[in-house]
Parts: sequence; structure tokens; C-alpha cells
Amino acid sequence: MKTIVTVNVSNRHIHLSREHVEALFGAGYKLTVKKTLMQPIQFAANEVVDVLGPKGMLEKVRIVGPERIRTQVEITVSEARKIGIEAFVRLSGNLDGSAGVTLKGTEGIVELKEGCIVAKRHVHVPASFAEEFGYKTGDTVSMKTSGERAVVFENIVMRVDKNNAELECHLDIEEANAALIKNGDKAEIIK
Amino acid sequence: MKTIVTVNVSNRHIHLSREHVEALFGAGYKLTVKKTLMQPIQFAANEVVDVLGPKGMLEKVRIVGPERIRTQVEITVSEARKIGIEAFVRLSGNLDGSAGVTLKGTEGIVELKEGCIVAKRHVHVPASFAEEFGYKTGDTVSMKTSGERAVVFENIVMRVDKNNAELECHLDIEEANAALIKNGDKAEIIK
Repeated sequence: MKTIVTVNVSNRHIHLSREHVEALFGAGYKLTVKKTLMQPIQFAANEVVDVLGPKGMLEKVRIVGPERIRTQVEITVSEARKIGIEAFVRLSGNLDGSAGVTLKGTEGIVELKEGCIVAKRHVHVPASFAEEFGYKTGDTVSMKTSGERAVVFENIVMRVDKNNAELECHLDIEEANAALIKNGDKAEIIK
Repeated sequence: MKTIVTVNVSNRHIHLSREHVEALFGAGYKLTVKKTLMQPIQFAANEVVDVLGPKGMLEKVRIVGPERIRTQVEITVSEARKIGIEAFVRLSGNLDGSAGVTLKGTEGIVELKEGCIVAKRHVHVPASFAEEFGYKTGDTVSMKTSGERAVVFENIVMRVDKNNAELECHLDIEEANAALIKNGDKAEIIK
């Protein structure tokens, strides 16, 4: 039996804490919804910020809401290099010791000592699927794509999630382009 | 026996014809050498051009000499998207029907009807190696990288080249970043 997964390609984006929303956009400010996303309750906000490093700037980086406990910036390896910071490949939330950047909003700036990462590829696994095949959060699998730039991505971390209805693998733009696949394409879990 | 290959990461660059060197930099102009490259007789030139598409521009794209019969622009999928052209994944020299762009030099512009590609990954194979293992130009192999973003790149085209002293795989920046490998790193041919 083939196990098929839907690929979701993440562009650079930022999750902000309440404190940082206020520092960047003003006291009492609330993010506004531009577009809802595949993951439950997540949305792309109308608001954007500039992300600055020692060598350059990424302009108008989209904020993804709702607010989180801790601010997290997700960019590609190329973007990290462009602004002159180290590329830390990390799972979401695993921010200790990651890169520092400066955020610039309409009303202020925030100096992040850490929190800028390159997202580690992962697959959201429905709880029912995990139970059936004996998977748990933290297990890794490989995923094979097809086509002229076919690739096998190894070390994909599984995250068991009761809110997820289907297997969904998250890649960043460079991983997707290296395989010449796009958002919504299908791939195969091979081990 | 493990077959080890050296990875060479190509940044965006341009090869120019004599005619286009003159159109961009003036009659009789000769490219000047900034740095010699791994491949015999190739060099990064001091000269750069801007590459324009319908949606944007790539500034200061490096010229790689010496001149060629036909002008060829090599960029990433992200860069193609940024300037609003289609990404054609092609081997070097296979330019018919590929994307058109405008080149801007210090003395003039060139409208290319075709010639802009995303380089198809390939491995330069020493003739002696090809003979020993029965490979020929156009055969494909897979290459496995290691580390936390380990990847198997499939469909790597072999190019037998009597000038090459060792196996050398050429990837673009997005492929290298997807695997978190850098210029000069080693990988393994696995079939």
C-alpha cells in the first residue's frame, strides 16, 4: 500500500507574541485576518514587518496569526545568508540559541536575541493514522517526490496531531524548488 | 565500495556570446578575469549584468567566461518566479524554447527570446571512471547526502568529460540549501 502525503510549502513568515505585536504596531493592537490557512485557526495577517540582520533586510515579511507565547521568525537558508545570520534548522518552538534579528513594524522595533530559524521539515500525522501504524511524535520518515527533479527527503519528523485530517508534509521554498514541487502536490512516504 | 562525489554549488550566472558582450559592454570589449573556477579554463568575470523579466530584476548577475556560441542565463526557480518568467529545468546548452529575459550592461541592452534556464543537476564523470563502470553521457544516477537535511537527489544526468579529474556534481543554491550542504562537501552515488 502506498502512503500518500500532501505537500504544503511555507514561505517566510513570522509568529508574534502579544508583547511584540504591541511593540511593533502599538498598544492594544490586534492582528487582522487577510486569509485563513490550512491548519486550523491559523491565518495570514494583513500586517507585515521588516526583518533586519547585520548584512541586510527582508522586507514585508508576512505575520501568521494567532499570537503565540513566543515570537518565531521562519526564513530560508538563502535568506539567512542574505541578512548575515546563521541558519539554524529547527522544529517550530525549538528556539533556544537560534539566531537573533531585529523586527521593524509601523510603530516600533523589537530586538530578538533568538527566535529566527529555518523550519525543519516535518509531517503532520492524524492521530488515527499514527495509532494504526504505530507512529509517535518525533519518529522520522522519508518522502519521495516524482518528476524530473525527483528527490527523497530523509529525516522528516512526524508530529501526531489530533486536529489533522490528513497527512501533510511542510517544506520550505528551497526544499520545494529543489524537488520542483508546489503547494498541494502529492508525494509518497517510503519508510 | 562507496562512490564519493564532490558537490559544486552554482550561484546564478550568465554565459555570453561574443555578439552580446559587444552589445552590452561596447564594440571590441573583452571580459576580464576576476577568479578562475574549478572547471578548466572557466572564470568568473569582473563584469556583471542586470537580468530583467516582466515582474522584476536580478541585479548584478555575474558573467562566467570564456564566451560561448550562445548566451545562457542560469538562475534558480525562486529567481525565475521573482522576475516573472517560467522556470525551465534544462541541461546547459539545451535552450530551445526556454525563457526570454532582457540583459542590461553598461553600454546597452539585449533582448533574449530564449536562453534563461534553471540548471538541471548533473555530474561530471572522468572518462576513465565512465569506462571502468560502463557509464555514458546521458545516463542518470542518484546521490545521497548526509546530515539533518539528508536528501537523495534522483535523476542526476552524467556527463562524461575527459578534462575532469574527479566526480563532481553540480547543484544550484536551492538544491544545496534543501540538503544543507555547501560547496566542496562530499556525497555518495548510490545507484
